[in-house]
Amino acid sequence: MAKKIFPLEKVYALLEPGPVIMVSTALKGRPNIMTMSWHTMIDFVPPLVGCVISDRNYTFDILKRTGECVINIPTAELAKKAVGCGNASGRTVDKFKAFGLTPVKASRVKAPMIGECYASLECKVVNKKMVNAYDLFILEVVRAWVDPRKKDPRTIHHRGKDVFMLSGKTLRVPSQMK
Amino acid sequence: MAKKIFPLEKVYALLEPGPVIMVSTALKGRPNIMTMSWHTMIDFVPPLVGCVISDRNYTFDILKRTGECVINIPTAELAKKAVGCGNASGRTVDKFKAFGLTPVKASRVKAPMIGECYASLECKVVNKKMVNAYDLFILEVVRAWVDPRKKDPRTIHHRGKDVFMLSGKTLRVPSQMK
Repeated sequence: MAKKIFPLEKVYALLEPGPVIMVSTALKGRPNIMTMSWHTMIDFVPPLVGCVISDRNYTFDILKRTGECVINIPTAELAKKAVGCGNASGRTVDKFKAFGLTPVKASRVKAPMIGECYASLECKVVNKKMVNAYDLFILEVVRAWVDPRKKDPRTIHHRGKDVFMLSGKTLRVPSQMK
Repeated sequence: MAKKIFPLEKVYALLEPGPVIMVSTALKGRPNIMTMSWHTMIDFVPPLVGCVISDRNYTFDILKRTGECVINIPTAELAKKAVGCGNASGRTVDKFKAFGLTPVKASRVKAPMIGECYASLECKVVNKKMVNAYDLFILEVVRAWVDPRKKDPRTIHHRGKDVFMLSGKTLRVPSQMK
């Protein structure tokens, strides 16, 4: 795998631009993937992430039971597979097999990472208080992996049914903040 | 103002790609703006949005007291002003005046909209249970306004200190979902 361990204090910069993510989980050794983009950073260190996962999704059940997942960030080449994973249910399909994705053993959680994604964030559920009301899980990123060769990843951003935006030009605006 | 009322059920498509937003508020008739990008959709209809606003920000105090704000979405032309608003504090500066932005009267909340932003979402706080633990406010969008001439808005996406990504190409990937 081309990914290397990535500093936890920089994780916010991966998720803040709002990419589509592929959340991988495992239940009794059986892996699953769901595609979504309802997530937000909640704190820098340790990195906390809020993820809204509908209780109609199989991933909701697995996450509630295991308390572990991996947030994987795909780039443009994976767009079709990401959408495909979003259209199938892990209750009946092994999505790693069906979409030709590679499960890679994670270091801190039992859920596998997705080898083809340029970044993978191993996560543990740290707060379920908003799960009943809003399907909102608070996750802590316990280890992050990023492919250091991907300097300018073309991430995928959902704009509504069938429509996505690919990340574009870089803009630098100096801040006065320290 | 060029903005028209926008259907609430389509609001998710504005926020899901993860743009930098400018949150406007008002306390006793005095308006304020803060720039941020820690937000996520939480539900479609009515549109619910989770926003993480640090308790060190003046906007945190105003939002706690008034329970109202407007989420404004800037495009590339406003990048410098958006960063400038993020670097100043509304405790000492009237940011509308300091950055040459136009407060526009909203219809359902007392906070003003930012005239120059292509979209403005009038919001009310509907849940503060996660404010103490995570600075996380749950907002309901009660009215949305979008400039219909902006078919392909170049939104701004934060990638870490001083670095932003502008929204790029559109990609269509047909979904099997109904």
